[in-house]
Amino acid sequence: MLKIGILGGGQLGRMLLQAAANYPVETLVLENDTECPAAHLCHHFVKGDIRNFNDVYNFGKTLDGITIEIESVNVEALEKLENEGVKIYPRPSALRIIRDKILQKQFYKENEIPSPVFRITEKKDDLKKFYDFLPAVHKKASGGYDGRGVQVLSEEKDLHLGFDQPSVLEKKVDIHKEISQIIAINASGQTALYPAVEMIFNQTLNQLDYQLSPAEIPQHTSWRVEAIALKVVKELKSPGIFAVEIFIDKNGDVLVNETAPRVHNSGHHTIEANFSSQFDMLWRVMLDYPLGNPKHIVHAAMVNLTGSEGNSGNAVYEGIDEILKMENIFLHLYGKKETRPGRKMGHITILSPEKSDLVYKAKIIKQKFRIISHQSQITV
Amino acid sequence: MLKIGILGGGQLGRMLLQAAANYPVETLVLENDTECPAAHLCHHFVKGDIRNFNDVYNFGKTLDGITIEIESVNVEALEKLENEGVKIYPRPSALRIIRDKILQKQFYKENEIPSPVFRITEKKDDLKKFYDFLPAVHKKASGGYDGRGVQVLSEEKDLHLGFDQPSVLEKKVDIHKEISQIIAINASGQTALYPAVEMIFNQTLNQLDYQLSPAEIPQHTSWRVEAIALKVVKELKSPGIFAVEIFIDKNGDVLVNETAPRVHNSGHHTIEANFSSQFDMLWRVMLDYPLGNPKHIVHAAMVNLTGSEGNSGNAVYEGIDEILKMENIFLHLYGKKETRPGRKMGHITILSPEKSDLVYKAKIIKQKFRIISHQSQITV
Repeated sequence: MLKIGILGGGQLGRMLLQAAANYPVETLVLENDTECPAAHLCHHFVKGDIRNFNDVYNFGKTLDGITIEIESVNVEALEKLENEGVKIYPRPSALRIIRDKILQKQFYKENEIPSPVFRITEKKDDLKKFYDFLPAVHKKASGGYDGRGVQVLSEEKDLHLGFDQPSVLEKKVDIHKEISQIIAINASGQTALYPAVEMIFNQTLNQLDYQLSPAEIPQHTSWRVEAIALKVVKELKSPGIFAVEIFIDKNGDVLVNETAPRVHNSGHHTIEANFSSQFDMLWRVMLDYPLGNPKHIVHAAMVNLTGSEGNSGNAVYEGIDEILKMENIFLHLYGKKETRPGRKMGHITILSPEKSDLVYKAKIIKQKFRIISHQSQITV
Repeated sequence: MLKIGILGGGQLGRMLLQAAANYPVETLVLENDTECPAAHLCHHFVKGDIRNFNDVYNFGKTLDGITIEIESVNVEALEKLENEGVKIYPRPSALRIIRDKILQKQFYKENEIPSPVFRITEKKDDLKKFYDFLPAVHKKASGGYDGRGVQVLSEEKDLHLGFDQPSVLEKKVDIHKEISQIIAINASGQTALYPAVEMIFNQTLNQLDYQLSPAEIPQHTSWRVEAIALKVVKELKSPGIFAVEIFIDKNGDVLVNETAPRVHNSGHHTIEANFSSQFDMLWRVMLDYPLGNPKHIVHAAMVNLTGSEGNSGNAVYEGIDEILKMENIFLHLYGKKETRPGRKMGHITILSPEKSDLVYKAKIIKQKFRIISHQSQITV
């Protein structure tokens, strides 16, 4: 029985482990937080820092394979492990490209993968010479995550908001749609492409409202999305699963925003809505089984459940009953004890053949479901 | 967060725990085997004997709820726990009826639930007076499981094969089809009926070949199956999930064979083929959430994966690759270290809108997939 380790014990690890129990595999998790979402679902929990060389190396040296939950892991240790014969999904070489936004942008450019044009800045002062490049988005080369480390610079007077560390300045795209294309690729280079999904943003709050699967895009755009995402994944030269995040601009052009070399938030709906989920698919890759069927069974929407504003502390869920009494609602709570404003605490997948039904239920969830802290429940 | 315990740590517990990770619930398992299929997927594993009063009582006394994986648990301890306010799914009163085949048959009779006619025998000698009742099936009142404790008595000369302990002698039914109807019922008495499934037996080997969902039965039969199974579940007066096993005889009559008061082998396909799986549904009952949607999404077949004849020892799986390269095959291996002839080691669900495709793939699985012991793999 193969021994596979996961670096990180959050919700992605949790869902990977739910899927792992279908297969003959011994599972391990490396994570500092002993009460993390994945801690109780693995065969062996190892307390340690995924960014520390020794912790990662010692965790991995007796394993057959390793995957990641997050990009900020110790790549040097993974390289040493790979040299010693441990299979890493994704390969450290791919991870090195992706985890540094400068290298990632250069990778797209070198491989003629369409992506927003960019400039590199080493320090904040460098921004001055690019005032005619605005409006643009300034992104830290490393350390950014879930919207952090990203700053919109609309006009010259915004330049002081930029980062004083190596960063990428990306020409702002006039976005028509944001799309995610998930692709699995195995060691033989065979690929499985999920139907692309579409992110619907709340314009007022500037946050993800919900996600639709499959995306509503014309077939010629869909072909372009698939071809470009496939090129990204093939050029990364690594088995694993990848989420290629894509902008479709107002001219209909397809541009790669960024790539995640792992199971991804935009693939959560695949648990219920597609034949083989992204988690099932990654196990098939890692256990060297034939790839699964990525096609969708039913149309779906996915809503992230995040901690409500102004609430920090022990999580309390409001509205579960009202949500679950609607038909074909699939709740996934990640078992995080503490809520914080905007923290991803769970998600809900909605299945329906009718888009109007999906959108209606997504809105109801946004209205009725709240994650507050224990304190505020008592005082309200 | 509610604390719910499972008595028994086999595959049913394993699949319950895979589903539990979607909900805010703290899970515990009581089981003697520390390497059982469910051991590593719960929050707290407690080593102990589910048939021992003290073990069950001590396990349960700090919990909010308890469910079972198997009927042979200590009912007295569950009764005491129920009196002290712990919710038991199913209630001990229902469990008492079901775990004793004599009480179960009397329950059907008292409630005018159609079921094969029967006689009660206390000892083997009693069979003599029922020679004109043959052909019949002799079933031990307690201790039978998965076909054990059951003996067909076709003619007078077979009478010596009967059991010398309290048993039920059931008139043999001229079976046309064997059906399972799974029903969930919550504390308010609301019910959710899964589409009935049909068991297809291999006539030569006299074992389950595969299972089809939904069953191919005329609508008036389906209505009768649902009405009768619903009557069984309502008269048991207990929340939980129940599998009512039913014979349809050659005259088209619908007769209850027996009832299982728990998640059941005949509901495994619901993980992929139905909106809310039997495991998800039981959590909804236990956590007092609205019931899920039991309807099927796609037609399905389910094949049990059992240990090959002549093989005992550390399990080795043959044919996984060949099976998984077929489309829409869902493998579930239960992680049991040791295989034995006929032991349930896993199952496969096949999804397809075409019956011919389901049957074809079920046959291929039967031919190609083998579970052998490590020893025989080396010597072959």
